[in-house]
Amino acid sequence: MSTTVPAGFRAAGVTAGLKASGRPDVAVVVNDGPDHHAAVVLTSNRVQAAPVVWTRQVLSDGRVDAVVLNSGGANACTGPEGFADTHRTAEHVAQVLGVSAGDVAVCSTGLIGERLPMDALLGGVDAAAAALSADGGDDAAEAIMTTDTVSKTATATRDGWTVGGMAKGAGMLAPALATMLVVVTTDAVTSPEVLDAALREATRTTFDRVDSDGCQSTNDTVLLMASGASGVSVDPDELTEAVREVCAELARALIGDAEGAKHDIAITVRGAASEDDGLEVARSVARNNLFKCAVFGEDPNWGRVLAAVGTTRAVFEPDRLDVSMNDVQVCRAGGVGEDRSAVSLAGREVSVVVDLHAGEHEVTVWTNDLTHDYVHENSAYST
Amino acid sequence: MSTTVPAGFRAAGVTAGLKASGRPDVAVVVNDGPDHHAAVVLTSNRVQAAPVVWTRQVLSDGRVDAVVLNSGGANACTGPEGFADTHRTAEHVAQVLGVSAGDVAVCSTGLIGERLPMDALLGGVDAAAAALSADGGDDAAEAIMTTDTVSKTATATRDGWTVGGMAKGAGMLAPALATMLVVVTTDAVTSPEVLDAALREATRTTFDRVDSDGCQSTNDTVLLMASGASGVSVDPDELTEAVREVCAELARALIGDAEGAKHDIAITVRGAASEDDGLEVARSVARNNLFKCAVFGEDPNWGRVLAAVGTTRAVFEPDRLDVSMNDVQVCRAGGVGEDRSAVSLAGREVSVVVDLHAGEHEVTVWTNDLTHDYVHENSAYST
Repeated sequence: MSTTVPAGFRAAGVTAGLKASGRPDVAVVVNDGPDHHAAVVLTSNRVQAAPVVWTRQVLSDGRVDAVVLNSGGANACTGPEGFADTHRTAEHVAQVLGVSAGDVAVCSTGLIGERLPMDALLGGVDAAAAALSADGGDDAAEAIMTTDTVSKTATATRDGWTVGGMAKGAGMLAPALATMLVVVTTDAVTSPEVLDAALREATRTTFDRVDSDGCQSTNDTVLLMASGASGVSVDPDELTEAVREVCAELARALIGDAEGAKHDIAITVRGAASEDDGLEVARSVARNNLFKCAVFGEDPNWGRVLAAVGTTRAVFEPDRLDVSMNDVQVCRAGGVGEDRSAVSLAGREVSVVVDLHAGEHEVTVWTNDLTHDYVHENSAYST
Repeated sequence: MSTTVPAGFRAAGVTAGLKASGRPDVAVVVNDGPDHHAAVVLTSNRVQAAPVVWTRQVLSDGRVDAVVLNSGGANACTGPEGFADTHRTAEHVAQVLGVSAGDVAVCSTGLIGERLPMDALLGGVDAAAAALSADGGDDAAEAIMTTDTVSKTATATRDGWTVGGMAKGAGMLAPALATMLVVVTTDAVTSPEVLDAALREATRTTFDRVDSDGCQSTNDTVLLMASGASGVSVDPDELTEAVREVCAELARALIGDAEGAKHDIAITVRGAASEDDGLEVARSVARNNLFKCAVFGEDPNWGRVLAAVGTTRAVFEPDRLDVSMNDVQVCRAGGVGEDRSAVSLAGREVSVVVDLHAGEHEVTVWTNDLTHDYVHENSAYST
């Protein structure tokens, strides 16, 4: 039930006709309180979709009563008219639910550079409002899918309170954030400030470390809402950990369903002089197309890992680098290690460990292989 | 005849047995003088192959008498033993030609992380030395090919002097440099300092603006040698322009033969506040896998161009960006422009123009589309 597992939330997902496929495409999640605290992390892309600009304004006072999400169109690069469409959507949701438009967040996903069909969208809002229920979370999660093959939900259960979440995202997955829409809810009693800190810490080590294809979106939104309906006041660290748990599960699900992927690759950098160094090295490997093609071909071509490491500014000496693939140390001290033929890449999960021997920090970034199907899906994109 | 068009040079290309395919794999180019000036630009990757480390030392005095090049193995990430192999190769060339090993540059290309078969390589050096001739440039150009489908040569003819060059490179093409081995020769009378300045200026606006797949190699080398055999003293600017002409032709040939590519894409950024801004934006678009897949599918998905521009730190306002594809202005002022269906991407050459409206600078970067064949070739790489 994802976002409706925590008490105080209702949700719905309906078919409004935005997608040519006829699949569900409009979702609404409502926070019935008593609290209406919220926090958000938005794309750092400077080209931002209208709903991102709108939602930033909505969150300025830390209150959200409802969020409306649509697939079937990103409403990005649509100019002032596109922003007016987002505004009108929020006004319509507010009217139907009896709340203020300034407390309605909006998320859109799909093709960039096309206006949304507003009649269909507003009709979808009416239908979703009518269908709202305390077990509507799964329907909402389905309605935000684009090229996702499965809906993504997660829950963290604690003593008397819970965190639930849903996510969509299968392409344009890169820091920061990964390209996605995510709604996380909790019935914990907390404050907007604690909520904001918890969300930033949770996304930093989860969604920001997913890098499927190095491409950053115009529409990324991770929204966290707290109803306080459990009546349980929680310790900020416990809240952060529960939110992080849900975000980590959703992030892992994004990688597991990335467009065309045949392998999920965990790139762990050890012995980094700093967390930033580890992250830079891990991302460089995660974005190396040649390495990603090699994994698709199940070829343990560790030379491509070293070539990617060598493009970074991290602290390391080339002749001290170690690389293991699926626990076989194929590169030792910058040179040839165990025979690469000992590495099997037949399974879905692949582990690459790079040891920089320059410090004590460790970072893991998740990515996918680069496949025929990735090229195929993205050369014929339509939502 | 490429490198042997200028007077004072001999070259050869032979089959030494390094490639499983049985194609030519060892080349030697000799500068018979009277001058032996040379300049080099090497990969900026911090993981550098043994021949790169060696050649940097050789060039420290600005003199090169001969260069030996092999395909069939990169001799990268091979440790001290790999460096000893490069040293031994240079010593062998020196002995056969009667020159000093410290004046013999070495270049290698092929798989990373494997030792070279030295018996075969040294036998190839003997054979190449025996085959050296003043019209051997084409044979040498053929012997350095890896996944190249055609050999790449270029010539610039001036009044009484010439510049000639050969290049190999089809994958791992990215700044700086593109991934390649290039040898350029001239019979102009000049100095090592002028030669060095000419080469740096020429590569900066040619090879450094080729970005096929964002992946940087461990073995990049662009070597320029001057024999002075024409007896013509040249103006430094004229020399730079002639070297730039040869480098531009070779760089364009690299893009035209990039692994699996179906389209050559020129990304021009206009109205940039600085050259660096223009370059950052052009490279960001050139490295966007989603955009590159769209071009493969002949889909003028300009939203992916804007999403790539938005990840940069260049000076621009998102609502002033214009984008044209093949002369159709699909994005105007950050929003929808002419109908994208008016864009035809059926031809091999694609032009993308991004106008930042932030200044007077203009930069063009060349890239390719991302195709099934790119994935296929690089998931089953072997030289």
